[in-house]
Amino acid sequence: MIGSLTGGEPFIAVDWGTTNRRAWRIGAGGNVEAACEDAGGIMSLGPGDYTGEVAMLRERLGDLPMLMGGMIGSNRGWRETPYVACPADARALADAIVWIDARTGIIPGVAQERRDAPDVMRGEEVQIIGALASGLVPEDATLCLPGTHAKWVRLRGGRITGFSTWMTGEIFALLGKHSILAPQMAGKARPGPGFAAGVVASADGDPLGHLFALRAAHVLDAPMIDGSGYVSGLLIGAEVRSGLRESGGEVPHMVGRPDLTALYAAAIGQVLGSPGASPSAMEGNAAFRAGCTALLRQFA
Amino acid sequence: MIGSLTGGEPFIAVDWGTTNRRAWRIGAGGNVEAACEDAGGIMSLGPGDYTGEVAMLRERLGDLPMLMGGMIGSNRGWRETPYVACPADARALADAIVWIDARTGIIPGVAQERRDAPDVMRGEEVQIIGALASGLVPEDATLCLPGTHAKWVRLRGGRITGFSTWMTGEIFALLGKHSILAPQMAGKARPGPGFAAGVVASADGDPLGHLFALRAAHVLDAPMIDGSGYVSGLLIGAEVRSGLRESGGEVPHMVGRPDLTALYAAAIGQVLGSPGASPSAMEGNAAFRAGCTALLRQFA
Repeated sequence: MIGSLTGGEPFIAVDWGTTNRRAWRIGAGGNVEAACEDAGGIMSLGPGDYTGEVAMLRERLGDLPMLMGGMIGSNRGWRETPYVACPADARALADAIVWIDARTGIIPGVAQERRDAPDVMRGEEVQIIGALASGLVPEDATLCLPGTHAKWVRLRGGRITGFSTWMTGEIFALLGKHSILAPQMAGKARPGPGFAAGVVASADGDPLGHLFALRAAHVLDAPMIDGSGYVSGLLIGAEVRSGLRESGGEVPHMVGRPDLTALYAAAIGQVLGSPGASPSAMEGNAAFRAGCTALLRQFA
Repeated sequence: MIGSLTGGEPFIAVDWGTTNRRAWRIGAGGNVEAACEDAGGIMSLGPGDYTGEVAMLRERLGDLPMLMGGMIGSNRGWRETPYVACPADARALADAIVWIDARTGIIPGVAQERRDAPDVMRGEEVQIIGALASGLVPEDATLCLPGTHAKWVRLRGGRITGFSTWMTGEIFALLGKHSILAPQMAGKARPGPGFAAGVVASADGDPLGHLFALRAAHVLDAPMIDGSGYVSGLLIGAEVRSGLRESGGEVPHMVGRPDLTALYAAAIGQVLGSPGASPSAMEGNAAFRAGCTALLRQFA
């Protein structure tokens, strides 16, 4: 089923994740006409809740066609949407949308079915298609999408040909919440001297061998000024160094939350020794909306 | 104060840690005559509890002199025992024992007061002195003590000249308890194919970039056989590769829990491409007791 969505008409785009949910009414011209965001992620919902939840979103945003992406399509979500295998492009993703009814669709994730490097994404593929459709990313490029599970993505001819996932965001959160370093990690990570020191310490590729320095410095009465920044710099520094190696030094285009893409840009500039090498960045929600629009255009 | 302990007489050795406490009555010949182990670590005790706790240990093990090491000497323990700075040997440690009374002493930890690599240990220094005193480790050697916060130690002329801490054990526990990988990490890590696969995956020095493969393989219906082993192999593999680089390829002598030293020995053998390169290992509690005995002999 192709559904009733043909692009160019108003619709609702929903980024439905594990914890949170963001929805927008997109006008005929592609502009955001209304939006809502709440904690209604899939972990807060049961199998029987989705019909009502979708009706509620339509009440709030308009009785319109709806396209959803993210964990809503996982086996813990509303309806499991099989992964599209790499190489994947907008056409393949649009063809694999699972239609709950003629105007309510779930976008599939993308899988890298390599035995030596299995990997999956759900939601990021929409942002990637959006960044491409917006013309902010060339058809041959490296993309980096920071987050709980950061993705480094290789695009060739406008297709996702391979990617790798870094648990950087999750590890950072675990350390800040549950580890012996937690008392020294109050506050949000920001670019600055602490972050830069972490990026320097990541140079030998052993981030886990440098974490304890934060604790030791505190115990030795020479505390680091910015523990959060140091740990963030260590983890992001290690990720960026490895990502740049894999990309052959190709500077990635960033897609994501501005506070995160700023940290990555700082680390990349530092690693490459040139703040001017700072990559282009697209805000993640804008990329998601553009991706939904681009997928609908496949049916025009 | 030097106290009444002069070595060669029976005494009680206590390894008093954060969570647990192990105590032994050591006979005049150095043999273990009685032992007890419980969850009476410093986190379960308040400042006023220690006098009673020590009296209780003497009731159970004998009214004897007592030497304690570990977190009991931290600022959260009974009495803060200042760190001895590197380079540190048995003489320096014995001289810096803090005597609560003439027959009750707390062994200091060791600090590496390097601005670029601050580090501290409490308890491991006793095991290191014990391994040296037992003749199982030469005076010039690299030691590895696995654990929550694993230590790699450089010995020169029988002195601890430098060391580094790896949060390998703590990160492994955090991942197994709180992360998205937890459901795939049931069971204890053991040497075997899963562990070996993790050590292989650690070869590019990016352990955090390979963790998510465990989750992805599960989602793609090609689950890894031994998730705990894989994660352990990744983390220990990365640590061992880095430790061997720092030691210039010098195979470390292992001191610690036999299940952990076996994992490290497997990783070291695999990384060096020769199972025969497997390092010597000393059980950690035996090393601790030997260390207490050796420190007392400094007063003989």
